[in-house]
Amino acid sequence: MRYPRPILRLIDELGKLPGIGPKTAQRLAFHILKAPRADVLNLAETLIEARDKIRRCSICSNLTDEDPCAICSDPSRNRGIICVVEDPKDVMVMERTGEYNGVYHVLGGAISPMEGVGPEDLRLKELVDRVKKQGIEEVIIATNPDVEGEATAMYVARILSPFGVKVTRLARGVPVGGDLEYTDEATLARALLGRRRIDEQ
Amino acid sequence: MRYPRPILRLIDELGKLPGIGPKTAQRLAFHILKAPRADVLNLAETLIEARDKIRRCSICSNLTDEDPCAICSDPSRNRGIICVVEDPKDVMVMERTGEYNGVYHVLGGAISPMEGVGPEDLRLKELVDRVKKQGIEEVIIATNPDVEGEATAMYVARILSPFGVKVTRLARGVPVGGDLEYTDEATLARALLGRRRIDEQ
Repeated sequence: MRYPRPILRLIDELGKLPGIGPKTAQRLAFHILKAPRADVLNLAETLIEARDKIRRCSICSNLTDEDPCAICSDPSRNRGIICVVEDPKDVMVMERTGEYNGVYHVLGGAISPMEGVGPEDLRLKELVDRVKKQGIEEVIIATNPDVEGEATAMYVARILSPFGVKVTRLARGVPVGGDLEYTDEATLARALLGRRRIDEQ
Repeated sequence: MRYPRPILRLIDELGKLPGIGPKTAQRLAFHILKAPRADVLNLAETLIEARDKIRRCSICSNLTDEDPCAICSDPSRNRGIICVVEDPKDVMVMERTGEYNGVYHVLGGAISPMEGVGPEDLRLKELVDRVKKQGIEEVIIATNPDVEGEATAMYVARILSPFGVKVTRLARGVPVGGDLEYTDEATLARALLGRRRIDEQ
């Protein structure tokens, strides 16, 4: 005896989602079978609506439901500074700091030979075009502080060097609120190298 | 700056699923936005199909896409033995043992005053009707071995006692492959009380 086919198919489809193993997929499936029909319809509709309405901003490649996106079309943002991030969710992370008023460029990932992602898979040409055409003062590279993010940062810096634009990278150091005892050596070494005079901060 | 509305709505809907927190909901949402449109349509369709095609078997209340369910309509199953379980997934768990050839009765939960589930919320009347009408030899109670499952087992045994049917409960004891050292006292006490002659096993 196995589950009826629609249940098997549901468990199977849910199990294709990232981080959802067979046990979780089964639990979700039973939840859906018990949920009010209107809720399930609503979830299904939301999936399709999001997939259909959300596209990439033609300027910065961030996910948006209007083109250009809310940030690119906001006249109060400084268009002379571009912050380069790997993914759309990194835009939101930067925005939450409340400290950034420039615009963004979403690469769509990081260079990773292990995962078969090369520079040609990222939106680098579009970044170069923006730097070439517009009066950009500074490009802040905010890729992740891991191996792939570092390699991508180096690559971006290199391809932008002919244009004489100022290219910066987010500071690496001890996290605010962190504990020195639990900080790894690489981070601590970076924090030491990047130390600044207290009166400069 | 916040996420565009369709993304917010998607994160919100996914976050309503059990065990899916805000971070996981966001991760799933971005996965869906990047996935091929056909895959998203397929997932949405599967949700609705499962919700619409799956209903409860009119005999045993198990989830099924045909009524009666595959087990209730299987002539090779012994209809004189009913195994009472809390949930449809417990049917599958019992089936996997390969040791049971009777039929089932799915209560739809367990008595739990803490969660406001009383006997009237379970499919007990239907069980009593089956026992009354048909020639049932034995009712095996396979509710969970926790407080709610025990209380439910006691309740089921009591309401079935007027009908003179044999009511049994799954044996409690040391799990196969387990380690005595890590077995809790309650389980070990049950295993001791329930000990059997080696030649009876």
